Amino acid sequence: MSFAPPAIHSFLPPHRTLMGPGPSDVPARILQAMARPTIGHLDPAFTDMMEQIKSLLRYAFQTGNKLTFPVSGPGSVGMETCFVNLVEPGDTVVVCINGVFGGRMLENVKRCGGIPIVVEDAWGAPVDPSKVEAAFDAHPEAKILAFVHAETSTGAQTDAAALGEIAHRYGALTIMDCVTSLGGTPVLIDQWGIDAAYSGSQKCLSCTPGLSPVTFSDRALDKVTHRTSPVQSWFMDLNLVLGYWSGDGKRTYHHTAPINPLYGLHEALVMLTEEGLERAWERHRTQHLALKAGLEAMGMTYVVDEAARLPQLNSVYIPHGVDDAAARSRLLNEFNLEIGAGLGALAGKIWRIGLMGYGARPENVAYCLKAIATVVDA
Amino acid sequence: MSFAPPAIHSFLPPHRTLMGPGPSDVPARILQAMARPTIGHLDPAFTDMMEQIKSLLRYAFQTGNKLTFPVSGPGSVGMETCFVNLVEPGDTVVVCINGVFGGRMLENVKRCGGIPIVVEDAWGAPVDPSKVEAAFDAHPEAKILAFVHAETSTGAQTDAAALGEIAHRYGALTIMDCVTSLGGTPVLIDQWGIDAAYSGSQKCLSCTPGLSPVTFSDRALDKVTHRTSPVQSWFMDLNLVLGYWSGDGKRTYHHTAPINPLYGLHEALVMLTEEGLERAWERHRTQHLALKAGLEAMGMTYVVDEAARLPQLNSVYIPHGVDDAAARSRLLNEFNLEIGAGLGALAGKIWRIGLMGYGARPENVAYCLKAIATVVDA
Repeated sequence: MSFAPPAIHSFLPPHRTLMGPGPSDVPARILQAMARPTIGHLDPAFTDMMEQIKSLLRYAFQTGNKLTFPVSGPGSVGMETCFVNLVEPGDTVVVCINGVFGGRMLENVKRCGGIPIVVEDAWGAPVDPSKVEAAFDAHPEAKILAFVHAETSTGAQTDAAALGEIAHRYGALTIMDCVTSLGGTPVLIDQWGIDAAYSGSQKCLSCTPGLSPVTFSDRALDKVTHRTSPVQSWFMDLNLVLGYWSGDGKRTYHHTAPINPLYGLHEALVMLTEEGLERAWERHRTQHLALKAGLEAMGMTYVVDEAARLPQLNSVYIPHGVDDAAARSRLLNEFNLEIGAGLGALAGKIWRIGLMGYGARPENVAYCLKAIATVVDA
Repeated sequence: MSFAPPAIHSFLPPHRTLMGPGPSDVPARILQAMARPTIGHLDPAFTDMMEQIKSLLRYAFQTGNKLTFPVSGPGSVGMETCFVNLVEPGDTVVVCINGVFGGRMLENVKRCGGIPIVVEDAWGAPVDPSKVEAAFDAHPEAKILAFVHAETSTGAQTDAAALGEIAHRYGALTIMDCVTSLGGTPVLIDQWGIDAAYSGSQKCLSCTPGLSPVTFSDRALDKVTHRTSPVQSWFMDLNLVLGYWSGDGKRTYHHTAPINPLYGLHEALVMLTEEGLERAWERHRTQHLALKAGLEAMGMTYVVDEAARLPQLNSVYIPHGVDDAAARSRLLNEFNLEIGAGLGALAGKIWRIGLMGYGARPENVAYCLKAIATVVDA
């Protein structure tokens, strides 16, 4: 043997309190679900569970969309699944950018051969519907509007209903990123007229990372099944994925689904039905107000205006004189507390404090405020 | 609320014995590792673990390749990662097809804009090196050779060393599927001169499905970093993934890694070092011989010639007069035993019995033989 085995032992992770932009704290009940015995991906018991997950996700997304399922990959794969299926080469796509994840949408449009029309807003601001209206007015040929509902890089929430209305008036489909909103603030797919949306398991659903719930309207599906060019990705081609995830009797093998992570997602969604969406939204709002009161009492200010502020992602300016990296290191090492750094132009300037899913509870708020007060005072 | 919560409760899976083509039986130790507390994907403790996984995978693949890591998705994503990065539009690619997964490689080449030269062998036979030699002789412009080392659809193993030698003689890169071989039979990436290989977590590593270990040689990486066209997938673009998985100090956020499944893979790989690759290969061979003796005593015959037979995937013809679906249903319902059906042209004609990883042990062999004897006798 050319290469000897490395001397590495079992990994025992530290026990953190996760209050960054995700992953969020995962309750023991979900972790235990993930440790249940693995079964086959074509086992009737598994396919029954798949159908349950689809029903549960329709509730979470507030949609009747038949094609609602978890993509077997992280949110970025859910994002790419939406773009590679809906954007054909030459399609004009209005892409709204007000943070990191809008920028990723643009990157996806380009790689699919789409012609992007960029609508820009400041990082920390929501997408401005009047700019979107102007973009469609100038480009009535646009076939798709893509925007981020809850920008994880800034904590800003965009008026999805307004954007959905504009897109449909111009006969365009909508692709919406709701990675950070699903389960934390209202996501009303059908009411808003959203045609394709993707989320993540590790934010307000409090599951472990690695799965991306998606939903597609019949209009979106119609576009996918009538494409003139093949979908560039084999793995993400909905024409193939459908054969596996569709509930129409006979299932075709497509890929091996991540069985145990899906146990975790199932449990997370069952917990969401037990609490109820409205109560979950209310809990996020209440805990946000408590955290906000504490942060403001320390003199900290929010990046996002109150009207567009996400309760589950609190972006605040780092107080003057506080060293970003050193303070976050102390939080991690002395308090086992993770909060998020700024991204892109906001790196070194802001902190992102998550109150997502199971993390949105009084214990976490109190602990976080105490820890931050300690490192900011130093 | 337009959509009420469905009345769905926690999912308690049945306890199966998994002896199909994967997922294989997952030992409790790995399941327990997956239930450890979630930490952040940029936590120093997590990035330390990532480095360990990379070392462990280099041992499993028997390679010194720096770029060796688990793709955050099932084996099909690992496959697509190899093709979208290494195949540029217009590249001629020799693709060997001797089962389902060679066919998928062809599909990937087409979607990347490559020009496929297909080398076909019968399902159940290994790839014939003389045909590969002839293909390169006729197409010296071919830049890549793609083949499946262990065909999961048939149980045939191909001489990877011979194919690697031919490709390199013609100055081509090699892409190898070793989803079913890694950990079960020798996979010697460096010795065989393989430039890109992908595997799966749920076969002979006995982890849960959802991760795809990959490795790339410096020659392969050189091609990726000198492409003239962008990689069509944002998620799979190694130029971006490198910033996250490379061990060069500063890490760039790319996507949220599936933390808990990676705990499981880490544990599975630690277990592999404890046993040692040679002993694991020997165990697969020994259990295969025991299973083979029992199946042949029942009059069953193998699909694949002995010289090319994979010990971890036993494809046998279904005995005359036995109803495929009914027999497998009885195995599942009466014995909680999963074995695999035939795919494609072999559907209804063969069974695929896996002895993979933790599943390759005397208890499983004895139980499987007893169960099959019962349903075949009926």
